[in-house]
Amino acid sequence: MVRWNDLSASDITLLDHVFWSSTISREALASGASFSKSRANAAVASLLEQGLLEATGEQVATGGRRAETLRLSHRLGVLVSVAMGATGLEVGVLSPDLRTLAHHSEPADVRSGPTVVLARVRKLARELLKKCGARPRSVIGIGIGVPGPVDFESGQLVNPPLMPEWDAYSIRDDLRADYAAPVFVDNDVNVMALGELWHLQRSLQNFLVIKVGTGIGCGIVCHGQVYRGADGAAGDVGHICVDPNGPRCHCGNLGCVEAMAAGPAIARAATEAANAGESPPLKQMLTRRRTLMLRDVAQASRGGDTAATAIVQRSGALVGQMLASVVNFYNPSHVFIGGGIQRVGPLFLAAVRHSVYQRSLALSTRHLDIRYSALGERAGLIGAAVLAMQESLKVHGVLR
Amino acid sequence: MVRWNDLSASDITLLDHVFWSSTISREALASGASFSKSRANAAVASLLEQGLLEATGEQVATGGRRAETLRLSHRLGVLVSVAMGATGLEVGVLSPDLRTLAHHSEPADVRSGPTVVLARVRKLARELLKKCGARPRSVIGIGIGVPGPVDFESGQLVNPPLMPEWDAYSIRDDLRADYAAPVFVDNDVNVMALGELWHLQRSLQNFLVIKVGTGIGCGIVCHGQVYRGADGAAGDVGHICVDPNGPRCHCGNLGCVEAMAAGPAIARAATEAANAGESPPLKQMLTRRRTLMLRDVAQASRGGDTAATAIVQRSGALVGQMLASVVNFYNPSHVFIGGGIQRVGPLFLAAVRHSVYQRSLALSTRHLDIRYSALGERAGLIGAAVLAMQESLKVHGVLR
Repeated sequence: MVRWNDLSASDITLLDHVFWSSTISREALASGASFSKSRANAAVASLLEQGLLEATGEQVATGGRRAETLRLSHRLGVLVSVAMGATGLEVGVLSPDLRTLAHHSEPADVRSGPTVVLARVRKLARELLKKCGARPRSVIGIGIGVPGPVDFESGQLVNPPLMPEWDAYSIRDDLRADYAAPVFVDNDVNVMALGELWHLQRSLQNFLVIKVGTGIGCGIVCHGQVYRGADGAAGDVGHICVDPNGPRCHCGNLGCVEAMAAGPAIARAATEAANAGESPPLKQMLTRRRTLMLRDVAQASRGGDTAATAIVQRSGALVGQMLASVVNFYNPSHVFIGGGIQRVGPLFLAAVRHSVYQRSLALSTRHLDIRYSALGERAGLIGAAVLAMQESLKVHGVLR
Repeated sequence: MVRWNDLSASDITLLDHVFWSSTISREALASGASFSKSRANAAVASLLEQGLLEATGEQVATGGRRAETLRLSHRLGVLVSVAMGATGLEVGVLSPDLRTLAHHSEPADVRSGPTVVLARVRKLARELLKKCGARPRSVIGIGIGVPGPVDFESGQLVNPPLMPEWDAYSIRDDLRADYAAPVFVDNDVNVMALGELWHLQRSLQNFLVIKVGTGIGCGIVCHGQVYRGADGAAGDVGHICVDPNGPRCHCGNLGCVEAMAAGPAIARAATEAANAGESPPLKQMLTRRRTLMLRDVAQASRGGDTAATAIVQRSGALVGQMLASVVNFYNPSHVFIGGGIQRVGPLFLAAVRHSVYQRSLALSTRHLDIRYSALGERAGLIGAAVLAMQESLKVHGVLR
C-alpha cells in the first residue's frame, strides 16, 4: 500500500512516466521526465528501495550497452476497473502495470438502474479482490466506464439515453464510501480512448476511437489528451444524420447513423432476412434462440452467409459515411474501431474504409489509418484501469 | 527594436501574458504567469525600464485599491499582417498590442499565383511601413493567412483547391529574405480562430470559427489552442455532404455544403432568381454590373427582398445541417461565424441556429452559443498579427 504523503512531486512524476511506458529504461525515464541523470538516479533508487518500482529483469540496448528496465511494483496496490455496457458488466482487479489479476464478466441490463447494478459491482469487486488476495485498503483507485454522457468534474451522468434511470446519478459518491481510494467515472468510449492511448504509450497525438455496439460513440484524443467537449458530450456521433429520409431514431430525429447501423439495426435486418428465407444460418439461429444479436450476424457473415455479409457491409458503409464528415472536420492520424462489431472481422472494416476514402478529402485521408482497436474486448477494462491510475496519480501529484 | 537576446525566459513569459491580456494589472500578471509578486515586480520594472512594457495610464480596482495596468510598448516594434482571400488581399502594420497603424485592402485573384501576389504583398508592406514611419528592421514578425490547407511546420501549402498554382509553395521561404523577422503562414480560418482567441483573452477553451465566403472552412480551438489535425487539414468542413443527391462539387463528390451554400452558390441562385423575374433589386444589380456577388444578395436581403432572403435562409439551413454533425462530434461551447456572409446579418444566423438546434442532441446544444465573429471584417488581419506575435514570442522563448 502506497503512503502517498511520503512521496514528493518528483516521485509522482516518475511513477506517472513509468506507468505510461509500461516498462522503461532509467535513461529514457530521465529524459522523458526532463530530469538530470543524477536526479533521476537518486529518485529511482529511493522508489526501488520503497518497493514502488521494480526491475523487470529485461534488458534493453541503449547506445551500445545493456540497461535494465523498470516497471511499477505490485506493492503499489491494485486498481479496480469496471466496464459497464448497455447489456453487459465487467469488473476486474488489475496491477499498476495493468496486468489483469482477476476479472469477471456477465450479461446485465443497465436499465435496471443504479441500485441493482451498483450492488452487483460491489459484490463482484469484493469477490475479485479476495480471489487475488488483495485487501480493500490496497486499492489505489477505481475507474468506471459507462454507456452514456458523463460530466467528468462532478462524476454525474447527464441525460443518458440508454440508461434513463441514471440521469444526474453520481456513481462516484455512491461507491466512495466503500474504499479509501478515489473513484473516477467517464463515458465508455472516452475510457476506450484512454486505454488505446496507454497501449500506444502516448505515441499518437490526435486520433479517434469509434465504438459500434448497442450504440455508436466516439472517443477523441486531441493534443495527446482525451477531449470531452464543453458539456462532456463530445464524440456523440451516433446521432449524425446519414439519410434525411431514414427511419426515426429514439432521439426523435430521422436517419441517425446509430438507428441505421448499430447492433440493434443489424439484428433487426438479420431477423428480417431470416424470416424472408434469405439466410439459412440466421434462420437456424433464430429458431433456436428466438432472437438474433450482433454476434450471430457476425458469426453468419464470417461463415460466408451472403445475407449476413450484405447487412454488415451496409452498416460499414453508413458508419464510413458518418466517419467521412468527422474525418474532414478532425483530420485524425488514426481511427480505431472497437465494440461488438469487432467480431465481424475484416469485411466490416473494408466497407468503412471504402466509404471514408470515397467521401473524404485527399489531404485528410492521405495518411489516415483505419483499423480495429488492438485491445479488442479488453479495451473497456484496460481503459477504466488507466482512468483509475492516471487520475489517482494526478490527485496525489496536485496535493504536493 | 527588441534585442531578444538580452531577454530572459521569464521576460518572454511575461510579455506573452501581457500580449494575450491586451492590458493587465501587475497582480493579475504575476498570478497568470505563476510568479511570486516580488519576482514579477522585479521583472516588470526591468521591462518598463527597457521600454518593452508601458503603463497605460488606466486604473483597475483590485481588492479595494487602484492599480495601474500594463501593455506592450510600441517600442517593441511592429507586426506585418497579411490576409489573403480567394478574391481579395489585405495587408496591415500593427502595433504589438494589435492596434492597426496602417492597412490597405484591394480585390485580388489568388489564382494569379505566388509571383504576382507576393510581389504585391511586398510592395504594400513596404509602403505601409513607410506610411507609419516604421523601419523594416523594426518588424517583429510577419503573419499570413491563406485560403487553403497549410502544413504549419514547413509553411507550405498542401493541395489548395482554390489556389492550385501555390501547391507545395513555401511563402515563408519566399518572404524570409526581405526581413530579419520570422514569417508564419497558416490557413485563413485557423488565423481567424487565433484572432478570436486573442479577442476573448483566451477565456474560452473549446470553440469553432466557421468562415463562409468563397469557400466554407472551420477553425478549431481545443484545450485553448488552435488544433490543426494530423496533416494540417482539420476544419475542412466545406466538403461534408449535406445532400447525397446534390450538385457535383469541384472536389468531385456530390452535395458538399460548400457547393450548395457558399458565396458562389448563393450568387448563382441569385442570378437565376433575377433572370426568372423573381427579384426586382437583384435584376437591377445584375443589369448594372452583369454579375452578382454574395454582397449583392446580402444587400437585397437586408432591403427586404423575398427571393434574396429565401436564398440566404436556404444557405443558412445547409450550413446549420453540416454544423449539427460537427457539434454532435465536437460539443463546442461557442461557434463564431465570419467571412463575407456576415454582411447578410441576423437572417442567416437565425437559419443556422434553427437547423442546428433541430438536429443536434440536447446535451451538445444545451449551452451552445452561435453568433457572428466579434472581429467581423478585421478577423483576418487581427488573426494574422496574433499568429506573428505568438509565434515570434515562442521562437524567442524556446531559444532561451
